[in-house]
Amino acid sequence: MNKRPLILITNDDGIQALGIRTLIKVMRQIGEVVVVAPDSPMSGMGHAITISNPLRVNLIKKEEGYEEYSCNGTPVDAVKLGEKVVVGRKPDLLVSGINHGSNSSINILYSGTMGAVIEGAISGIPSIGFSLLDYSPEADFSHTEEYIKKITLKVLENGLPEGVCLNVNIPLVNGYDIRGIKVCRQAKAAWEEDFDVHTDPHQRKFYWLHGEFKNLDDAVDTDEWALENHYVSVTPVKIDLTDHQSITQLKNWEFNN
Amino acid sequence: MNKRPLILITNDDGIQALGIRTLIKVMRQIGEVVVVAPDSPMSGMGHAITISNPLRVNLIKKEEGYEEYSCNGTPVDAVKLGEKVVVGRKPDLLVSGINHGSNSSINILYSGTMGAVIEGAISGIPSIGFSLLDYSPEADFSHTEEYIKKITLKVLENGLPEGVCLNVNIPLVNGYDIRGIKVCRQAKAAWEEDFDVHTDPHQRKFYWLHGEFKNLDDAVDTDEWALENHYVSVTPVKIDLTDHQSITQLKNWEFNN
Repeated sequence: MNKRPLILITNDDGIQALGIRTLIKVMRQIGEVVVVAPDSPMSGMGHAITISNPLRVNLIKKEEGYEEYSCNGTPVDAVKLGEKVVVGRKPDLLVSGINHGSNSSINILYSGTMGAVIEGAISGIPSIGFSLLDYSPEADFSHTEEYIKKITLKVLENGLPEGVCLNVNIPLVNGYDIRGIKVCRQAKAAWEEDFDVHTDPHQRKFYWLHGEFKNLDDAVDTDEWALENHYVSVTPVKIDLTDHQSITQLKNWEFNN
Repeated sequence: MNKRPLILITNDDGIQALGIRTLIKVMRQIGEVVVVAPDSPMSGMGHAITISNPLRVNLIKKEEGYEEYSCNGTPVDAVKLGEKVVVGRKPDLLVSGINHGSNSSINILYSGTMGAVIEGAISGIPSIGFSLLDYSPEADFSHTEEYIKKITLKVLENGLPEGVCLNVNIPLVNGYDIRGIKVCRQAKAAWEEDFDVHTDPHQRKFYWLHGEFKNLDDAVDTDEWALENHYVSVTPVKIDLTDHQSITQLKNWEFNN
């Protein structure tokens, strides 16, 4: 690439989050940067889009090679607004994050960070989501920079297959060194969940979800294994959700007899 | 199955929608039914969950073999509330819909109807989403009943593979007979989208997404082909989003050199 790539950045923790600040810092070393991120936290929004409400875009900062906007939509809305309203063309790269907390395994389905990345892939933009295994708003992202830069440069160099994006998760370094980068598949896992039951001042019950993540997969080729063993996990994710293996089996059900 | 199966029903158009009424009618012929559906329209919510707000469940109707509740959450929240708060055990089947409008191809990613179905699959419940290719609130669902019943009975008889659910789309019958049921893969497609730009009374701009669906896949084994040719499409959908084909390719990028 002769000229500097145009990089669109978003996240789901909101434009004020520390994670997106680290991502902006790294991306400004690589290309021209446009940030369009939600103006409030949007964790758990998955691939939600806004259909029934007007969307707004607010300019925060504009200088040579850098523009920053907030919007009142979801992370997926931010990608659409970024491409169609702010940039007016397909960016060369979309990055989302750095998420405060893991998006490994099935968490990708709930994740607004990864919703944005999947939207990028639908739109034909090479797209990467970055997450750090620390939910704290004050998480230390400094050790993530070198891995984010390395993976981003590889994607800009090689491109990504059509309909495929990357889900990158980065472990903590409290007492351990990161051992490298591993290409992985999504682990089988589930949340053991329940609802806390409360009573409001008007004696009406309300519920609040809580849960514990359970890795149900003891294989060594998964994102969960990589993260537990101090590797950065890189999982290729596709927008085709078809279970091709089941098609033959379902055809034997003889629906039309 | 000796006793009647326990069937959990939800949707994304809200508990008042005509589509869910048809689904309830058909399911009551098959099993004991518990409905937990959003109290307002939740189209486009994808796999969103509610993290930052309290959830409520309101009893609407309770009689022998039938219970109906609304909730203030998303379709995925409704599945979690249905299993954990209302039923208190894993239902034998989850059905979602009938959606007012297609959820074929990549629409599955935006769909709250299919978000609920994927959540069912994560939770280990055999789960089916039904959609009719008519966005009208007054859509005629009468011709869908026989296909819904047939597909549901097949799933109860055969079960579904772990981590796999079904996305069923049903065409209209204006002038055509439905030619049968086809097992399909998700078509490659995209929305050609843009934002309408408006100005509010305070001279501030706002944006509203609109778009046109484009099938980019001319193969005959897709859901789009089936629907255009007057077949009911049945697409097996999996919760593992890994693109296994890309893993070898990405390993050749030599991230650690």
